Amino acid sequence: MKKNLVLAPGPTQVPPEVLAASAKPTIHHRTPQFEAIFADTAERLQRVFQTQSPVITFASSGTGSMESSVVNLLSPGDTAITIEGGKFGERWGQLCEAYGVKRVPITLEYGDVVDPAQVEEALKANPGTKAVYATLCETSTGVLSPIPALGKIVSKTDAVLVVDAISGLAADELRADEWGVDVVIGGSQKALMLPPGLAFCSISEKAQALMASSKCPKYYFSWEKALKALADKSTAFTPAVNLTYALQASLDMILAEGMESVWARHARLASALQAAIKAIGLAMFSKAPSNTVTAVKVPDGVDGGKIPKIMRDTHGVTIAGGQGSMKGKIFRFAALGWCNEFDVTTALSALELTLTELGFQVAPGKAVGAAIAAFEG
Amino acid sequence: MKKNLVLAPGPTQVPPEVLAASAKPTIHHRTPQFEAIFADTAERLQRVFQTQSPVITFASSGTGSMESSVVNLLSPGDTAITIEGGKFGERWGQLCEAYGVKRVPITLEYGDVVDPAQVEEALKANPGTKAVYATLCETSTGVLSPIPALGKIVSKTDAVLVVDAISGLAADELRADEWGVDVVIGGSQKALMLPPGLAFCSISEKAQALMASSKCPKYYFSWEKALKALADKSTAFTPAVNLTYALQASLDMILAEGMESVWARHARLASALQAAIKAIGLAMFSKAPSNTVTAVKVPDGVDGGKIPKIMRDTHGVTIAGGQGSMKGKIFRFAALGWCNEFDVTTALSALELTLTELGFQVAPGKAVGAAIAAFEG
Repeated sequence: MKKNLVLAPGPTQVPPEVLAASAKPTIHHRTPQFEAIFADTAERLQRVFQTQSPVITFASSGTGSMESSVVNLLSPGDTAITIEGGKFGERWGQLCEAYGVKRVPITLEYGDVVDPAQVEEALKANPGTKAVYATLCETSTGVLSPIPALGKIVSKTDAVLVVDAISGLAADELRADEWGVDVVIGGSQKALMLPPGLAFCSISEKAQALMASSKCPKYYFSWEKALKALADKSTAFTPAVNLTYALQASLDMILAEGMESVWARHARLASALQAAIKAIGLAMFSKAPSNTVTAVKVPDGVDGGKIPKIMRDTHGVTIAGGQGSMKGKIFRFAALGWCNEFDVTTALSALELTLTELGFQVAPGKAVGAAIAAFEG
Repeated sequence: MKKNLVLAPGPTQVPPEVLAASAKPTIHHRTPQFEAIFADTAERLQRVFQTQSPVITFASSGTGSMESSVVNLLSPGDTAITIEGGKFGERWGQLCEAYGVKRVPITLEYGDVVDPAQVEEALKANPGTKAVYATLCETSTGVLSPIPALGKIVSKTDAVLVVDAISGLAADELRADEWGVDVVIGGSQKALMLPPGLAFCSISEKAQALMASSKCPKYYFSWEKALKALADKSTAFTPAVNLTYALQASLDMILAEGMESVWARHARLASALQAAIKAIGLAMFSKAPSNTVTAVKVPDGVDGGKIPKIMRDTHGVTIAGGQGSMKGKIFRFAALGWCNEFDVTTALSALELTLTELGFQVAPGKAVGAAIAAFEG
């Protein structure tokens, strides 16, 4: 009787109520019945994004929505600043290159966080910059970017600030309008507690103005088509109807808890994970830890690739290893979405067993105890 | 106690076993567990597409996969022939234009079917043509294209034949390899009996060779990334995990019935619909009726826009009206996917009630009786 627990940075656990909603009979999308459902999700997503701007929905993974924010804002030859401190920041660079955008990367050591002054300097050095592409939580390293500071800098210029909040949305605080974020990218399979398959994008007036001059080719990911359809309570192309049912159910849960409480819960769980990691003598990988992902350095002498494998195959707890050059060097917890204190203690119990099995002795209950102490604190 | 029946050309009815499969707990996609599921669907989709070529899967609507077949095969300035006899044929033209491809349209009256000689002539007149974009069933008109004849013509040239089979796949006969179709585009929410959110694409060796020279920009819809990931039993970007579970369940049902039987069942239901339509004095809109969509001319004196509305809101049967310039002039049935004889008789019962309510008298049981006679025939 193995019970499976997913504590990876997406997909995450989906509550049974949400799964049940997704299994309701599929209705036709071009009906008043579906339009009412879709319009409800679009309006309530604005509260999750903390914005008055329209939030559009794509049937795609989050990367599709990232791509939309390149092809709808820019033209070939335009300049964009990309903050690249991990796999997903680098994806901004790859997307710009794919469309002939001149990319000015701010390259960080993995685990480091951008200094807002770097962005300010890059904007001064590249006065025609059209957009700055940042990441709320860099999923590959667990680093949280200082979005409020970036918003203050970028909003003084003609450039727009685009934030990949795919993993971080509804886990790390994000206030799109208050912080001056023009475009926020979201995905369904993270703290929104949904299966993968939906991606989101909020689009400020400043971004809509820039959109009007964009010459990159596009069709499926066209914001113009999506915004026009949204005004009619619809999507430009067939929406993922059943995932939209699921979104209604997850928004019910998230908004009943309230965004402040949702962020506070994620902060509480991440703090406990961090305390536990330190208590057993391990080190955090991120120099600016997020609520979303807790990235931990693999201790010397331990085969790092085996940690997620034993956690999953022996103990039923799915966490993530390192990606690319970080493979085997870090492992990553994400107490993300539908998670509480006992998901954290379960994960830490499994980690204690796993590390001991791999020859790194942990006094039984040491990690779990530190987490409980953090919860009591 | 209204029972809802969806007989529109997508989304279609999803069997409860498929909905239940979609509601299983979401697992992480970068695991051997999910890779086994994904590889199973990719392999079994080849049997649905009747191809030995790889079939890739996108988290998107069908249009995204259509777009993929433009951006991965062509370069700006290339020439492509598009068969445009309705909204979806015209979409091929729009996609080509969006990416700077020189489009040579074969424009048909709505309801008409392409003459293969037109394609042969267009290929002769445009010797550098890279691709011919066709549609298996033109959903907006119900017209079935003569794909075997097109395959014979195109396969003699350097061009590839791309077929939008989104609505028609697993309803109208399609044998990709035998017929010389290089690329087949599919979508989940039609005869595959799934909710919307997955799109498919089979890619022949000839198409893969053309792909290597394509210079259109792309990222999310990159075939190169998708094929590379498929070789590792995976997708380039986060797959729609729960829809993949559902796909397994629907493939179980479809392949247990067998493709020949699936096509024959759709033919049987479409023939009965056609017989019923004629029996009550209505006329088919399509000059080459498909199994997928049965498009019917609205009789004189009847407010055509009200037919789908009364069918749906009074009787719970969702069919489709006309799109664009055909609005109010036609209505469309699709006994598509999870349908049997009694879905047809239910739809026709509702149609009899609806037409009579709109002042077009139908002798009670006339349409239904004609369908039953066809089934007995």
